[in-house]
Amino acid sequence: METVSFDKVALGEGFWADVIDKNAEISLPNVYRCFEETGRFRAVRCEKQETPPHIFYDSDVAKWLEAAAYMQKRRYSAEIAAIVADTVDAICASQRPEGYFNSFYQVYAPERIFKERTEHELYCAGHLIEAAVALASCGQGEKLLAAMKRYADYICERFYEKRDAGFTTCGHPEIELALVRLYEYTKQEKYLSLAKFFLDERGQREEEIYPWADRKYDQSHLPVREQNEAVGHAVRALYLYIAMADVGRIEGDGALLSAARALFADIVGKKMYLTGGTGSSYLGERFTVAYHLPNEYSYTETCSAIALALFCDRLAKAENRAVYHEIFERVLYNNILAGESENGKGFFYTNPLESHACMTEYVRGLKEKPYQPIIERVEVFECSCCPPNLVRFFGELGNYIYGTEKGVLYVNQYISSSVCAEGLRAEVQTEMPYRGTVRVRAEGKGTLALRIPAWQVSIACKVNGGFVKPREKDGYLYFDVDGETLVEAEFEMKPRFVYANENVWENSGRKAVEYGPFVLCAESCDNGKNLRNLEIPSLEGALVETVGGLKVTVAAKRLTTGAALYSYEPPERENVTLRLIPYYAWANRGENDMQVWFL
Amino acid sequence: METVSFDKVALGEGFWADVIDKNAEISLPNVYRCFEETGRFRAVRCEKQETPPHIFYDSDVAKWLEAAAYMQKRRYSAEIAAIVADTVDAICASQRPEGYFNSFYQVYAPERIFKERTEHELYCAGHLIEAAVALASCGQGEKLLAAMKRYADYICERFYEKRDAGFTTCGHPEIELALVRLYEYTKQEKYLSLAKFFLDERGQREEEIYPWADRKYDQSHLPVREQNEAVGHAVRALYLYIAMADVGRIEGDGALLSAARALFADIVGKKMYLTGGTGSSYLGERFTVAYHLPNEYSYTETCSAIALALFCDRLAKAENRAVYHEIFERVLYNNILAGESENGKGFFYTNPLESHACMTEYVRGLKEKPYQPIIERVEVFECSCCPPNLVRFFGELGNYIYGTEKGVLYVNQYISSSVCAEGLRAEVQTEMPYRGTVRVRAEGKGTLALRIPAWQVSIACKVNGGFVKPREKDGYLYFDVDGETLVEAEFEMKPRFVYANENVWENSGRKAVEYGPFVLCAESCDNGKNLRNLEIPSLEGALVETVGGLKVTVAAKRLTTGAALYSYEPPERENVTLRLIPYYAWANRGENDMQVWFL
Repeated sequence: METVSFDKVALGEGFWADVIDKNAEISLPNVYRCFEETGRFRAVRCEKQETPPHIFYDSDVAKWLEAAAYMQKRRYSAEIAAIVADTVDAICASQRPEGYFNSFYQVYAPERIFKERTEHELYCAGHLIEAAVALASCGQGEKLLAAMKRYADYICERFYEKRDAGFTTCGHPEIELALVRLYEYTKQEKYLSLAKFFLDERGQREEEIYPWADRKYDQSHLPVREQNEAVGHAVRALYLYIAMADVGRIEGDGALLSAARALFADIVGKKMYLTGGTGSSYLGERFTVAYHLPNEYSYTETCSAIALALFCDRLAKAENRAVYHEIFERVLYNNILAGESENGKGFFYTNPLESHACMTEYVRGLKEKPYQPIIERVEVFECSCCPPNLVRFFGELGNYIYGTEKGVLYVNQYISSSVCAEGLRAEVQTEMPYRGTVRVRAEGKGTLALRIPAWQVSIACKVNGGFVKPREKDGYLYFDVDGETLVEAEFEMKPRFVYANENVWENSGRKAVEYGPFVLCAESCDNGKNLRNLEIPSLEGALVETVGGLKVTVAAKRLTTGAALYSYEPPERENVTLRLIPYYAWANRGENDMQVWFL
Repeated sequence: METVSFDKVALGEGFWADVIDKNAEISLPNVYRCFEETGRFRAVRCEKQETPPHIFYDSDVAKWLEAAAYMQKRRYSAEIAAIVADTVDAICASQRPEGYFNSFYQVYAPERIFKERTEHELYCAGHLIEAAVALASCGQGEKLLAAMKRYADYICERFYEKRDAGFTTCGHPEIELALVRLYEYTKQEKYLSLAKFFLDERGQREEEIYPWADRKYDQSHLPVREQNEAVGHAVRALYLYIAMADVGRIEGDGALLSAARALFADIVGKKMYLTGGTGSSYLGERFTVAYHLPNEYSYTETCSAIALALFCDRLAKAENRAVYHEIFERVLYNNILAGESENGKGFFYTNPLESHACMTEYVRGLKEKPYQPIIERVEVFECSCCPPNLVRFFGELGNYIYGTEKGVLYVNQYISSSVCAEGLRAEVQTEMPYRGTVRVRAEGKGTLALRIPAWQVSIACKVNGGFVKPREKDGYLYFDVDGETLVEAEFEMKPRFVYANENVWENSGRKAVEYGPFVLCAESCDNGKNLRNLEIPSLEGALVETVGGLKVTVAAKRLTTGAALYSYEPPERENVTLRLIPYYAWANRGENDMQVWFL
């Protein structure tokens, strides 16, 4: 399947247009402001500062540049354009004659260039390359691209041709997928070869790793084609898997693709939160073991959610299966959206599925603090990878809506928009994510395929006003388009219980509530304390409101007991009205208890 | 109430006689062997070693001496006697002329004597004093007592009279309760005054604390009489509270007693595990907030369980309320007993209420390890406070069976034994903890009071063979004894569900099973994996077996699902037979999943 690039997709009004406009108007400039204030933009000017910048500030700036590239297409800002130009100039001015650029190493530790596998050097290069490709492909100049091609050439020379660098593969994957992007934009084979080289070499020998880390931590425990269990640092893992799917697809490398598919199956079958989050352990920000999905102390980093979405996209490109888009949808509407506050300024790094504000309060009073996820979003972190990652991801969301293959135009995500592809012009109007109504005005001759959402409870379709029963295959509904055709589908949305696999010990005896693509949650500001004690016997009669955001109100029971800590008396069940909101919308009203899994 | 000293109590056959004999025959010599091998006994000889000993090795040896003192009364061993004599000689030979003894400070850091509040110096002194009192009161010589009185005098001189020590109160309470014991044995007021002084001074000013610790950590955040919430390191807290109850009782200090009662109420009403364990957080081994009782990562140290039992005992001495004995019973039969392996050689430091062996396996593969409780007992720890604490506690268990007050002989714990006190001679025979049958042959004139166990589901009493309905008051049944009297009580024991307070979020929607004083648990070696998925609809028809240890078999359901990680299909309920054993008996058959709280 080929995906349709976001610059060929015109977004219509609705939920996502609002998110993306907020991204342009608020998030992008605000992340800039925070990064400027915290010295990230100063850092890439390569002037020596008293306090050396963080070793991966370059990647923060690069992701912001990439985000700016996308957002300028949506909503041009001269101010943003000036910052972009100025930053690109600064990077290019500081780039070394041989092509190298890293604002930390060249200023503070030139003698250690290409000698420290763990320190994100090629990771930063990868993000700069992605930014360069983004700017070029969005028509915002090729200056950075030219510079980054020179850098990529230099990496190629040192790591592949001369092999005189101090390590073989980078401790944090990213360069691999960036090189594929560079190859796909420039069509220069050498970048693909280099990406493949980095993949091939990974796990072939013992390489430098943090003293505290095992080899699984950065996925260098096995050659990549032999990896079939998702392990280690979740973002590192997923960035690697993305490149595996990319190179596997482009090279027709069955072993690589098959490993990527096995890793995907392991993640979505055993290691993914209901929200699409991954990374069960804060220590090492990593995958742990099958079915270990603690809600309160999950890691589920925003970046790893984005990475899982990208991995879905790359797998779908190799082999268009509805499940990839289904998981993309899950992670998009839940963990990814949760990464940002309602006002577009605050960000979550970790995204727990349960919060007890009393624990936050307790930990605040300690000097030596155990890990406790934050329960209010903040504007910038010391390790602030997630905010610009989210801003760039929202910026290119249009990339993930449509796909084409053999004369079929696939609608994979339901986002109001119009597109021209595969001989068809289609205008999709939808009330999603609040109602499952889809209306496609198509013109041309070809086939239109609508993905059947996993959450639908019934489907009704019309073509040109008349009810039809379309062909259904592998999770899609197929419609022939010949001339002006109006295709309507109603995927019925209802609040539904969802249950975790019997092996997920954290959720035994519990259920969550979903509405369409949204996982719902309860917050204590709506429902009082003791959310874990809430039982939802049935969703019959649940009231769904969508004005000013989704709210689902349902009759529930609260288990109540006497004052004793332990008692032989079973709890009583008190009738209560439970107010649920989408998981992503939590934590916008102060510190709150929050709960996803109910009795 | 006065408790009847264990040397006036002759244990009969049964459950506890077996535990205590194992304690004498196996645990005591085995802990000695481990401590000898790990240099603890070498340390107290005060010869400089290449690797300095641990700063509180003295307390390990002291607790072992105390244990030996008790066990020699039960089962004399010439070999143990020789070790005791030799160790006492070594300590006395090394004691400094002014009375000071600390094997770490005097050998390795004499310039820092009495200057480091955090480093357990007076804590070690306290345990040595306890050992000295134990040896003397068990008729095993007053040599150590004489030495420790000199040490206590020296502490008094430096801390109280001259006040020229480098700190005022010790960072780890223990000296306070030890001084009370010394006072009660010697009747020398100065020791009581010194204990009171240390209590009075605590929390009156900012004192030295670990750089990473807050003042709540060692309960120096408030004057003790103002403390009403259990906070900080659980063992430190409970040792302090014991001394508060002691001094409050002896001095008639209402404010002190009232604080001790408030702290007890806070613990047993909000911060105690069903097993009697305390300490919800491994970080700081500490109390956290009300109702935060995580099962899998509880701390619930064996020492804090013992300390809670002792705190119950001291409160009961001040004011005999059945609740203190009830909690004593809970902690005794559950967390305390769990501290030791079936073979008497292995010990648990922490006692979780839920185990997932896959997590132990996962953590084993990591270099940087998150906290993961061990799930098999070991013979010795680097910080091996619990093993000798348990051995000494079992050694003096006879102290906690009987109490006397105003002509009444109280039977507080049901352990087959005989006693002479308060004008009565009583022989108690019981099938507890397996059946609630109690038979007391009493002689003399007076009143016998039997504590009504909280777990009984019915009571039937006989006097001299005839059914009676005895006077019942405040948790006791009262029987007049005049001449030879046979009092029989049948406290019916049945498996019962027990529920946690609605605020205990970890256990919402779950229930545990108790049988008599035992909390029961399931292990995966009996029940397969996925113990969290087990539902017990009813205890009707539960089969109780007591031969070779308690086993309760009950019809249950296992929630099963398809293979998908998430599904709209609710789990099915498969009939299974659930095999429960007492919580304390878990982890004797290899690494196992274990569960206390069921659906």
